Amino acid sequence: MPATRWGIVSAGRISSDFAAAIRQYPLSENEIVCIAARQLTSAEEFAKKFNISKAYGSYKEIADDQNVDVVYIGCISSSHAEVMDMMLKAKKHVICEKPICMNSNQLKNTIDIAKKNDVFLMEAFWSRCFPSVNDFRNELNALGDIRVLTINFGVDITGGDCTQFKKIGRGALMDLGCYPIMFANFIFGCEKPDKIVASAQLSSSSGVDQLTTVALHYSNGRMVNITISNNCLLDNTLKSILSKRICCDSRFLASD
Amino acid sequence: MPATRWGIVSAGRISSDFAAAIRQYPLSENEIVCIAARQLTSAEEFAKKFNISKAYGSYKEIADDQNVDVVYIGCISSSHAEVMDMMLKAKKHVICEKPICMNSNQLKNTIDIAKKNDVFLMEAFWSRCFPSVNDFRNELNALGDIRVLTINFGVDITGGDCTQFKKIGRGALMDLGCYPIMFANFIFGCEKPDKIVASAQLSSSSGVDQLTTVALHYSNGRMVNITISNNCLLDNTLKSILSKRICCDSRFLASD
Repeated sequence: MPATRWGIVSAGRISSDFAAAIRQYPLSENEIVCIAARQLTSAEEFAKKFNISKAYGSYKEIADDQNVDVVYIGCISSSHAEVMDMMLKAKKHVICEKPICMNSNQLKNTIDIAKKNDVFLMEAFWSRCFPSVNDFRNELNALGDIRVLTINFGVDITGGDCTQFKKIGRGALMDLGCYPIMFANFIFGCEKPDKIVASAQLSSSSGVDQLTTVALHYSNGRMVNITISNNCLLDNTLKSILSKRICCDSRFLASD
Repeated sequence: MPATRWGIVSAGRISSDFAAAIRQYPLSENEIVCIAARQLTSAEEFAKKFNISKAYGSYKEIADDQNVDVVYIGCISSSHAEVMDMMLKAKKHVICEKPICMNSNQLKNTIDIAKKNDVFLMEAFWSRCFPSVNDFRNELNALGDIRVLTINFGVDITGGDCTQFKKIGRGALMDLGCYPIMFANFIFGCEKPDKIVASAQLSSSSGVDQLTTVALHYSNGRMVNITISNNCLLDNTLKSILSKRICCDSRFLASD
């Protein structure tokens, strides 16, 4: 089987982490064939660092590159939908950094495009793919039905200039909230909540949410209560209250 | 100084606990002069148990008793407002079991009546009066500003026939939620939240809330996120996230 040929969108930190991870695999299995950034010089620098043969100054060039099988999208969140749609229409498979889109309408449209073009589309929730996560769920399931999850996840990632946060689609819910929500979905077998109630403190400077609660109400009186912050280090635990009244306390899966 | 003369409204379990506590004091300081229940026989039984000289078959008789200085109200929550008003108008001081009223309109009206009649009125939050609670707040304050509190408080108190719960003013928020809310108020120096967002799972049989979240949003981006249940034993902890990123984990003050 020939190597899977990757194109990487954006030369930022997340893309760099992704490229470093791909480099752990033999070139005969996974090859990074090109990198694109809005600034060609950034792409060239990235290409040099990871020994990638082609560097582009626009994402469109990846869409047009016939040597690319799958595109990893690591650009700013607010551009995800547009860039994904471009790649999917060019029949590239796509793995997109979280949050995959800014809202459900964008996502529905993107999924539609992926289906029409018969290509693979995935949100890059790496922690969802840890073997330990499956083990955790299996162990929980063996203990009994889960009644309540309370999840706190907060890290200060607002350093530096935050004024662009709103424009580029960042905020506590988008940056960090997607992790506990993914986790709740995963533990409850992707059951759709009956009701979602959220409230947030907005930053007066950046305009994005910085301390947010989300209550997910599920059938049979089950609930998930989440506290998220992007400017405050929380204790980052997940508590599972089971019907047999066993309480499991776990360090939440953080990305570090 | 003569002994404080108590009248007790209702012969239920909470009143019994209260009478037992009062009995710890010398009779020369605190004397229970009468007990009233809706059933005279219940009042008589209670009077016998606690050696109280007068038992009444109606609360009105306590209001009319000139020997009573202060009334402890331990009847069902939905009757608190009516009984308090009766006692306050009779110029009795009042200590009322929590929750003091069913809604803020009732409470405003009751406070008005207490002021007009120049008598003392207090909600019976005994845990608020523990010396350890003051110590805890002082220790927290010494550590730094509190950014986030997450409080879980849940006990299964729905045993037996719950069908009357709605009528008598019971539910997770009324029964248990008032404790973490009192605690949040206390820690934040009774500052009024800017915003309150709550959501609940209602029991299909009793109609009251059984799993409830309350987010209290305070000034300067501070927040309290509470999970309450009256049919599920939670881990009953209070977590305080401080500006210096110290996390304090405390067992919540339960009544047992």
